[in-house]
Amino acid sequence: MNVMTMAQHARQAARRLAMMDGLTKNRALLTMAAQLLRDAPRLREENDRDLQAAQANGLSGAMIDRLRLNDDRIAAMAEGIRQVAALPDPVGEIADLKSRPNGLRVGRMRVPLGVIGVIYESRPNVTADAAALCVKSGNAVILRGGSEAYYSNRAITRCLMEGLQSVGLPTEAVQYIETTDRSAVGELLRCEGLVDVIIPRGGKELIARIIAESRIPVIKHLDGICHTYVDGEADLEMALSLTMNGKMQRTGVCNATETLLVHQSVAAAFLPVVCQQLRAAGCELRVCPRTKALLPAGLPCVDAQPEDWDTEYLDAILSVRVVEGLTEAIEHIERHSSRHTDVIVTRDYGNALRFLREVDSASVMVNASSRFSDGFEFGLGAEMGISTDKLHVRGPVGLEGLTTQKYIVLGDGQLRQ
Amino acid sequence: MNVMTMAQHARQAARRLAMMDGLTKNRALLTMAAQLLRDAPRLREENDRDLQAAQANGLSGAMIDRLRLNDDRIAAMAEGIRQVAALPDPVGEIADLKSRPNGLRVGRMRVPLGVIGVIYESRPNVTADAAALCVKSGNAVILRGGSEAYYSNRAITRCLMEGLQSVGLPTEAVQYIETTDRSAVGELLRCEGLVDVIIPRGGKELIARIIAESRIPVIKHLDGICHTYVDGEADLEMALSLTMNGKMQRTGVCNATETLLVHQSVAAAFLPVVCQQLRAAGCELRVCPRTKALLPAGLPCVDAQPEDWDTEYLDAILSVRVVEGLTEAIEHIERHSSRHTDVIVTRDYGNALRFLREVDSASVMVNASSRFSDGFEFGLGAEMGISTDKLHVRGPVGLEGLTTQKYIVLGDGQLRQ
Repeated sequence: MNVMTMAQHARQAARRLAMMDGLTKNRALLTMAAQLLRDAPRLREENDRDLQAAQANGLSGAMIDRLRLNDDRIAAMAEGIRQVAALPDPVGEIADLKSRPNGLRVGRMRVPLGVIGVIYESRPNVTADAAALCVKSGNAVILRGGSEAYYSNRAITRCLMEGLQSVGLPTEAVQYIETTDRSAVGELLRCEGLVDVIIPRGGKELIARIIAESRIPVIKHLDGICHTYVDGEADLEMALSLTMNGKMQRTGVCNATETLLVHQSVAAAFLPVVCQQLRAAGCELRVCPRTKALLPAGLPCVDAQPEDWDTEYLDAILSVRVVEGLTEAIEHIERHSSRHTDVIVTRDYGNALRFLREVDSASVMVNASSRFSDGFEFGLGAEMGISTDKLHVRGPVGLEGLTTQKYIVLGDGQLRQ
Repeated sequence: MNVMTMAQHARQAARRLAMMDGLTKNRALLTMAAQLLRDAPRLREENDRDLQAAQANGLSGAMIDRLRLNDDRIAAMAEGIRQVAALPDPVGEIADLKSRPNGLRVGRMRVPLGVIGVIYESRPNVTADAAALCVKSGNAVILRGGSEAYYSNRAITRCLMEGLQSVGLPTEAVQYIETTDRSAVGELLRCEGLVDVIIPRGGKELIARIIAESRIPVIKHLDGICHTYVDGEADLEMALSLTMNGKMQRTGVCNATETLLVHQSVAAAFLPVVCQQLRAAGCELRVCPRTKALLPAGLPCVDAQPEDWDTEYLDAILSVRVVEGLTEAIEHIERHSSRHTDVIVTRDYGNALRFLREVDSASVMVNASSRFSDGFEFGLGAEMGISTDKLHVRGPVGLEGLTTQKYIVLGDGQLRQ
């Protein structure tokens, strides 16, 4: 089936799904979860076909590990769907209903976007996660995973479709593009009017290509160059633990701290301690000249190059810079941040407020680890990704980000004068 | 100055404007309004140059009328700016601040989008309206009006810049593209990374061109094919007045009713009355065969052609169709509506709720005139346009639609486990 036809079917299914009550959607999701567990042996078989191809194609060990489905991962996938089922239904919520002077009541009702295209790479669990969030929010979804996970994704999708069928929902609400032909992505990106939004999940190259080609709005799930700024008024013990946690709690993720900025007035007291602890934890340091001058002789570090300030390491590497104060810290962030998440550590009320207001990033934090920038930690329940765009949805994309609001007007015969 | 350079200046100015308190922005707006009144003689002079060119170029009388600035219109423009100044400042509002189990408080702060590009035609007052809304919402704006209003728009922009200067704001916060070279629009549409959103105001051709060319997200201000559906359970007197008001109160506007749908069970009682009254008011009728059979002999009407259901008349013309019931009405709207505004007239609770839920338009109304679909009538204070898109902002675009939210996180040293 060509992608345009799939999109037409998705549009029809989306109308049905948008009208569906929460109980029915939840029953479909719970059946999907149960079906994944029941089908675990078949899922592993299909996954083996992908793993064999990956080995034959010489994929890296890390890539192959991400691709692998074992019983634990299948169970986690099922549990993820059950957690989405447990979230409140966002659809139909009416907000801000206010009376106008003429008696009209005007409010906004939350409704699904319609049809969502999700384009992703590598990890097959995205198939289940993304579909569950779309179904819960009343949207039909067209999935396009990486060719390396072709058999796994197809097998997972079959389980999801059984969940839809079990409650009489059209199976076209969750479709998987079953071709490894790369032109299918281009076809999907040209389905304007049928597909309402595209959500890519993957590396920068994939996302850049999608942005360049898409005729449909894209919610970008981008990587992060996150900063932790230790203010002159910081509690230095707190700053130490937040820096260690922000950088080292997990390094290969988009909300890890990549750059540490330190106010000059606390640099001499703070930098030797934090840098020694980072080194002891196995972190490479790329430092500015003022930082270097403060570090104990013999502590291994390298001179930061200009490109370091714009690099997302996704690794145990930290760039470190001394700044003259809050203004220079904010300017550095303005210039180099990927506008994902930036943190100030301070006890000063005015500096905290100024940082919150002036830093133009999706998440701005005071005295917290950058690692908290995440849909689950923010209380959204689950996330589709993190948007570094400003329009529609910014920061973690949960169920609300997959919906829109329409105005509703309740009158009793009002006429415009 | 080329457009890219203007956009860079706008970006700088936007940073300053985003930090500005409401009082300063309001003082700038009030000075703009005063300056327009003070400069009225010069504005009329510059406007005369545009009017003479328009006459020489053979523009229609209606176009020339839209272009004209007289003292009343200048006063209205100034009053519009004062009304925007009187609105609450949307910037800095913190919403949904909630405590997480670990004590983190997570909320969302409303902030400006950054730099907005507004591309418009004909009426010079858009220059002042759009700029006022952008400044109030903390955004820098790059304006590009139609070449037919070149001198008028330039003169208005000078007044706006004086308002900025009077409070020490950078004049680059409001810039006008002072060239009639059409390639300037293309340049603006390629300023991704500098300009955050493009808002076109004008005819379908202009908007289609912008959507096709833009590398920047577009908030579309589209026209309307609005429906009024008279249900089998309607109060027919109310249906009569809502139909007359929706169609005839003003015909050349996007929220006028273009199609009347009538439930077959009330068609015989309702259609002869409403159609006679519409004809008496000078409205042309384009009717389906079932409607025609019910109209009094001799009442002038024409057979609706298939394209009538997809036509925005913007004139005293109404297409009329009898439907079998609510389901067929919703299906008709799904197929033919431009998703701007659709109305049901009914006394039935279930039908009202079903229409509200199932009709996928920016504004969905029960027992109200479609003519109420408007930012001012909805209580937004003023509007930049009406979005028929689903992402970011849907329906009337007021100050909130020109802003975004960032997550703010207030901690006291929390670490991620």
